[in-house]
Amino acid sequence: MEKIPILRMGPFLLVTIQVDLYDRLALNLESDLVQMVNKTEAKGVLIDISAVSIVDSFMGRIIGNIAGMSKILDAETVVVGMQPAVAITLIELGLPLKGVHTALDVEKGMELLRKKIDLEEEPTEEDDIIAD
Amino acid sequence: MEKIPILRMGPFLLVTIQVDLYDRLALNLESDLVQMVNKTEAKGVLIDISAVSIVDSFMGRIIGNIAGMSKILDAETVVVGMQPAVAITLIELGLPLKGVHTALDVEKGMELLRKKIDLEEEPTEEDDIIAD
Repeated sequence: MEKIPILRMGPFLLVTIQVDLYDRLALNLESDLVQMVNKTEAKGVLIDISAVSIVDSFMGRIIGNIAGMSKILDAETVVVGMQPAVAITLIELGLPLKGVHTALDVEKGMELLRKKIDLEEEPTEEDDIIAD
Repeated sequence: MEKIPILRMGPFLLVTIQVDLYDRLALNLESDLVQMVNKTEAKGVLIDISAVSIVDSFMGRIIGNIAGMSKILDAETVVVGMQPAVAITLIELGLPLKGVHTALDVEKGMELLRKKIDLEEEPTEEDDIIAD
């Protein structure tokens, strides 16, 4: 299968990564996601990587790219379900996933996105979630 | 990767099938799902098969099994995102997915599940969604 499905959940898009991201699949995912964000006017993108046990610099870069592209289209990206070993590897590889927000699971990720949207709508309130 | 992640979304569980279900993976998914339904007291299971372009009798049976097991644990199963070609194949194979509800996408599937839960809570109302 050459496509990773993107699920629409209200104002958010959900992507579950279950397979190794090789070149073409990653590029397809990037372009599909950007088009979906544009088409659905999504306010947030959730990337579930709970099935990912091995992470390399390529995947780190893809996630960073997606976050950057979504940000330009006014959608925040949250990576959810990261396994502890993956977090260790990312830091050891020197890939701290800058600009990407993280949450323990999809529910917490959605909560974070909802809070961020609310904060954007009320810019007077102090933003204490983003710390980058 | 040997596990298909199961995502919790409020009272529902969401599974996205992106890879070919071979023996062990399918059995793992069945047991993981049943345990998750039990642990989270989920009222519904959504199986997204939008990435599945080829379906065979094995996958048909697995989906039927999951629906049966979930039903015993008081959770409804909805299959979402089926490609038209897959629907054609299922009927031509003689696998009409009995006991499994379907919806066009995750959002419509959730709506269907919510309606079904409401209907269960108000058993006086006539159930016009299930037609089997």
